[in-house]
Amino acid sequence: MVIRYLDKVSDDKKELKKLSYRELNVLADEIRRTLVDTVSKTGGHLASNLGVVELTIAMHRCFDTPKDNFVFDVGHQVYTHKLLTGRYKEFSTLRQDGGLSGFPSPEESPHDTFAAGHSGASVSAAYGLVEAKNLKGDDSYTVVVIGDGSFTGGLVYEGLNNAGRKKGKLIVILNDNEMSISSPVGSLAKYLTTFRTNKVYYKVRNTAIDVLEVIPGGAGISSRLAMAKKIVKDYIYQNNNFFEDLGFQYMGPVDGHNIKALCRALEGAKEFDDKPVLLHVRTVKGMGYQPAELDPSQFHGISRFNVLTGEPLSVPGKKNYSDTFGELLCELAAEDRRICAITAAMALGTGLEDFAKRFPDRFFDVGIAEEHAATFSGGLAKGGMIPVFAVYSTFLQRAYDELVHDVSMQSQKVILAVDRAGFVGEDGRSHQGLLDVAFLKTIPGSMIYSPSSYDELSLHLRRAVESGGKVVAVRYPRGYEGYLPENYVASDENVSFFGKEGSSVAIVTYGSLFSNACLAMEALEKQGVDVRIIKLNRVWPIDEAAVREATKSGTVLFFEEGIKAGGAGEAFASMLLDAKYGGDYSHIAIDNTFVHHAAIKALEEEFDLSPEKMAEEVLRRVKN
Amino acid sequence: MVIRYLDKVSDDKKELKKLSYRELNVLADEIRRTLVDTVSKTGGHLASNLGVVELTIAMHRCFDTPKDNFVFDVGHQVYTHKLLTGRYKEFSTLRQDGGLSGFPSPEESPHDTFAAGHSGASVSAAYGLVEAKNLKGDDSYTVVVIGDGSFTGGLVYEGLNNAGRKKGKLIVILNDNEMSISSPVGSLAKYLTTFRTNKVYYKVRNTAIDVLEVIPGGAGISSRLAMAKKIVKDYIYQNNNFFEDLGFQYMGPVDGHNIKALCRALEGAKEFDDKPVLLHVRTVKGMGYQPAELDPSQFHGISRFNVLTGEPLSVPGKKNYSDTFGELLCELAAEDRRICAITAAMALGTGLEDFAKRFPDRFFDVGIAEEHAATFSGGLAKGGMIPVFAVYSTFLQRAYDELVHDVSMQSQKVILAVDRAGFVGEDGRSHQGLLDVAFLKTIPGSMIYSPSSYDELSLHLRRAVESGGKVVAVRYPRGYEGYLPENYVASDENVSFFGKEGSSVAIVTYGSLFSNACLAMEALEKQGVDVRIIKLNRVWPIDEAAVREATKSGTVLFFEEGIKAGGAGEAFASMLLDAKYGGDYSHIAIDNTFVHHAAIKALEEEFDLSPEKMAEEVLRRVKN
Repeated sequence: MVIRYLDKVSDDKKELKKLSYRELNVLADEIRRTLVDTVSKTGGHLASNLGVVELTIAMHRCFDTPKDNFVFDVGHQVYTHKLLTGRYKEFSTLRQDGGLSGFPSPEESPHDTFAAGHSGASVSAAYGLVEAKNLKGDDSYTVVVIGDGSFTGGLVYEGLNNAGRKKGKLIVILNDNEMSISSPVGSLAKYLTTFRTNKVYYKVRNTAIDVLEVIPGGAGISSRLAMAKKIVKDYIYQNNNFFEDLGFQYMGPVDGHNIKALCRALEGAKEFDDKPVLLHVRTVKGMGYQPAELDPSQFHGISRFNVLTGEPLSVPGKKNYSDTFGELLCELAAEDRRICAITAAMALGTGLEDFAKRFPDRFFDVGIAEEHAATFSGGLAKGGMIPVFAVYSTFLQRAYDELVHDVSMQSQKVILAVDRAGFVGEDGRSHQGLLDVAFLKTIPGSMIYSPSSYDELSLHLRRAVESGGKVVAVRYPRGYEGYLPENYVASDENVSFFGKEGSSVAIVTYGSLFSNACLAMEALEKQGVDVRIIKLNRVWPIDEAAVREATKSGTVLFFEEGIKAGGAGEAFASMLLDAKYGGDYSHIAIDNTFVHHAAIKALEEEFDLSPEKMAEEVLRRVKN
Repeated sequence: MVIRYLDKVSDDKKELKKLSYRELNVLADEIRRTLVDTVSKTGGHLASNLGVVELTIAMHRCFDTPKDNFVFDVGHQVYTHKLLTGRYKEFSTLRQDGGLSGFPSPEESPHDTFAAGHSGASVSAAYGLVEAKNLKGDDSYTVVVIGDGSFTGGLVYEGLNNAGRKKGKLIVILNDNEMSISSPVGSLAKYLTTFRTNKVYYKVRNTAIDVLEVIPGGAGISSRLAMAKKIVKDYIYQNNNFFEDLGFQYMGPVDGHNIKALCRALEGAKEFDDKPVLLHVRTVKGMGYQPAELDPSQFHGISRFNVLTGEPLSVPGKKNYSDTFGELLCELAAEDRRICAITAAMALGTGLEDFAKRFPDRFFDVGIAEEHAATFSGGLAKGGMIPVFAVYSTFLQRAYDELVHDVSMQSQKVILAVDRAGFVGEDGRSHQGLLDVAFLKTIPGSMIYSPSSYDELSLHLRRAVESGGKVVAVRYPRGYEGYLPENYVASDENVSFFGKEGSSVAIVTYGSLFSNACLAMEALEKQGVDVRIIKLNRVWPIDEAAVREATKSGTVLFFEEGIKAGGAGEAFASMLLDAKYGGDYSHIAIDNTFVHHAAIKALEEEFDLSPEKMAEEVLRRVKN
C-alpha cells in the first residue's frame, strides 16, 4: 500500500496544516485504505470510522490537540484521530493484547481526552472540562463528536441543557449518519429527518423571510402586527430548532465528506464565543468501502474479514448465546402473548431481529436509553405484560436506579436478558461485563440466573418467565457455549454438583467458568486429585444447599468472572461463616480494577480463571 | 373545621361529579385547610400539594380512577389525590409509622398506580402502561402529572422521545410552577419562561396567522412561496415548541387554579387519539396559604409548624450534618481555589446555599440530573478542579454508571458528599439511603468515609480533598450528630477502637450507628459485660487492622444501616475467612427489603439496630 502523507502527518501534526485540500483528499484515501486493511485483520469498528475520516482531518486542521481537546462520544469512531496523532506505525496492534485500544485512551496518548465506551457522556464531560478551563482562564477549544444515535439518550439532553446556557468555547459536532446502531428511534430522529430530507429547506426559509418583508410594516404598523412579524421571524431565523431551544447556536447541515466545507464551518464555529455551537454534519457510515456502505450494521463492530468481498473470515452459522436467546424468546412469545422484548438500540447484538419481525407489536427498541428501557418495562409489567429487556451487562449499569425504583420497589417482574456478561475481550475496559452480579444483588428481591449452556439458557429463561419475582436476570457470556463434560445435564435447579463428593477441594463457580472448572477437574483427575464442583445455576440468592455442600471440603475456591467487591463470592463467605465453616476459603475474582482489552482466553489466564490457573490453585492447596 | 363536601367525596368519588363548579371551589378550600392543618402536625410536603388542589379535583372530575390511571412524578404532590380517593378519614396518620405514605402507594390504594419518589420516571412508566393497554385493547386513559423541575432530568426526555411517536391515550400534564426544588435550571427553564411571560403570545400568534392569510396565495402562487407559507405556518401552528418536536400535541398554558378551565382543557385533551398530549398548566406553589406562597422552598418539605404564623415548632438553629458540611466546604473552598460544588437541585437540602453565594463561579446547580452531575464532575476533575458533588444517597443511585465510566475509569477524583445516608424516616421507601455503600464499593478504586460526628465529617472531608483517589465518598446521615462517649476523639485514621480490648464480643460498625453501639456498650458494662467496638471510619476499603482486631473476639457482630447484600459486612466476612477466623460472626443489616416510612428511632428498633437491640444481641451471644 503506497502511503505518501499519512506516515509524515502522523509523526508531526504540523505537516497536516501544510497540505492543500487536494492533498488532504489523498490523505483521506490513505486513511481509508489503512482502516479497511487493519480492521480486516484485527476486527473492530469499521463503518463509523470510515464515516468520519474527512471530519477528523478537518478537526485536526482547524484545532490543536492536545491544547484543544477532542471528546469522542462512545469513542468507537476514534481510529482516524489515532492515525493522525502519532499512532500510525502501531496501528496494526489495534485491539490486540498490549496494543492500541479501540477506544480513546488518555493513557495511550495526550491527544485522547477521555476514555469512552458508553453513549452520551461526551457533552457533560466536555462541558465540565470547559467550566474548568473558564475557571483557569484557559481559552482553548473543546470539541465534541457525537452521533445522532446518542441523542436518544437522556444524558446527552442533560448535558446540552446545562451547557447551553453558559459561555465557553464548546463546539458539539452532531455526526448525523442517519442511524444509531440498530435504527433511529423516537421523535427526535424523525425531527432530524426534516433537516436531512428537505434540501430546499434553507432556500425556502429565506423566501419566507422575504415574504415577511413585503408585509406592510414600518413606522405605521400596529404593535400587534409588529410583534407577530417578530415572532414569525424568531421562529424562522433563530428559535427554529431543538438545539437552539437548548441554548446552542445551530449551524448546518454540512457535507461531512467535504474537507473544505468542514473547515469553513469549523472556523465559523470558532467565532462564536457567547454561546456553545452545535454543528450539524452529515456523514455516510462506511463511506468509501462499498461492503460497509451497503450494510453498515454488519460493519459496525466486526470480526476479521476478506477485504475484497467483505465476507467474514471466521466460519459463520454457528449459533452463539445471543442467537440462542433470540430463538428462545420467539418460542416463548409464540406461547405467551404477554411476553414483550425491549432493547436499547441493540436488536442485532442481542439476537432480537427475528423477534422484531415476528412480533412487531411486542417489540420495543427505545434507542440508547437503558434508563427508560427499565422504567418502561416496569410500566409494561404493571399493565400485565412480561417484559424481557435484552441488554449488554455493561450498559445495564446505567439503569441501576430504575431497576431499584421502577421495577423492584413497584413489585413488578421484569426479566433482564444480560448479554456479554463477563469478559468481552477486545472492546476492553468500558465494555467488560463485570459488575452486573454485584450491583443486581443489592436490589431487594432480585434473582440472577447464570446458564452454562444453551440448554440451560432455555431452562432458566423459561423459569424466569413462569415464576414470580421482581428483577429477574438471566446472564450469559459473549460468544459460544463452552466445554461441557460427558455427564453434564442442563439444570434449572438452583445448584448442580459435579465431580467426586467429599473431595478435599470444592470449586464454586457459575456461568461460563463452569467449563474451565470441568477442564481443571479433568486435568487434576489425571494427577489423582479429586475435586468437587458446585455450580450455581441461580447465582442469587445463593441456595443453602451450595453452602452445605461446600462445608464438606476443607478447601473452598470460589472462582468468579466478575468484580470481587460485592460479588457472589463475598456473600458466599458470609454464608460459610454463618454455617460455622472452619476450612480454607478463597474468592478469586476481579479485584478492584478495570480490565483492559485482550482475547478472553488471555484475560482468563491473567486473572487466574483459566482451567490451568484453576488447577494450579487447587494443587497449591492440596500440597499445603 | 367545617367540612361539607370533602368527607362525602372522599368516600364516594361519584359525589365529585355531582358538584357544581362553585361547590368544587368550596371543596378546594376544604382540601387546602385540611392540608395545612394536617401537615402542620405531621410535617410533609406542603407547597407542592397546595399548588395542585384544583388540578387534582379537575382530574378526578374528568377521569375515572382506578380504571383510568394517574401517575404522579416524584409523588410528593399526591395529598389531594389521597383525600379524594377514600383516605380523608385517615389523613391525620400521614407519614406516621403504620399510617398513610407521603407518596403514592399501590399497596395503600388501587387509585395509586406507581409508587414514586425519584424524579422523572413518570412518563416512561406511564408509557409502558399505555403500551400494555394498547396490547390488551384497554382504552382507558393514563394521565401523568409532572413538575417543570423534573424536566431538567434526562429520563423524562427519554420517556417523551419514545412516547411521542406512538398512539395511545396518554396525557402528560406539565405542572409548571416556575421552580424546581431549588431553582429552575438550564435552557429549557428559560424556554418555558417565554410561554409564561408573554401573555399576548397567543393573540399575537393568531395575528401572525392572519398576516399570512393576506399574502397573495391560491392557485397562481409559486411553489416556493407556497412552501414558505407552509413552513411559517407549521412553525406557528404546530411545530412551534420543544414538546411538539418530540411528537406531542401541545395544549396550554391553562390557569391551574381555575377548575372550569382545567376541566375544559382535560376534556379537550381526551379528544386526541392519534398522538399523546402535553397539557401545560400553570400553578402557584403554596397557593392559598400565605406563608407557603411567600417562601415555597421552606414549605417544600417541612417539619411541624404553627399554622397561624408558618413558623416551625421545633427549635431551629441547631446545626445538622448538612449545615455542617456546607460550612466546611466553604472553609475548604476559601483555602483551595480548585474546589467546586455541584448539586442536583438540592442546594438548600445539602447545605450549599452559602457556598452558592460566596463562590458563584465554582457552584453548579445542574437541575435534577444526577447522571450529568457525575459526568460533569469527571470533566471538571480532568480540567484540574476538585469537584464535590453533594447529593442524597438515594438519588446518587441514578449516577452509578457515570461514577464507573466517567469518573473511576477516567482515573479522576470526584468527591461525593453523600447526605441522607441510612434511614431517612418519614419519607419512606423511595428515599431511604440504604444502598450507597453496597453499590459504591463495587466501583474499582472507590473509597467510602463514614464520619460519626461533625468533627469527623471535617477530618474526613479534608482527607478526601487532600489525598488521591477516584470516587471518594463521605457519607453522613440525615439530621444531627448522635451520642458520643466521653473518651471519644474524632479520627481520620481508617479504624478506631473503643471499649475493652480482648472482650469476648466485638461490635463492628460505622457512621451514626457508632452512637448506638456506645450506648449499648455502656448499658452492658453496667451488667458486667465488656464489649469491644471497632469503628470503621473508612468503610471501604476495609482496613486489615479492623479484621485483626475482630479476630481477637470469639463473637463478632457487624451492625450496618444499609443493605446486607453487597454491604461492608459481607466483605468483612470474606476478610475474616481469609484471616482464618474460627469464631461466630453475624451481619445485622437490612436484608433484601425496602424500608417503609417511620421515625428513624422506630426503624432502628425494627431492624435490630437500636442500642437496646444491639445489647440484647450481645447478651444472647454471651449467654450461649
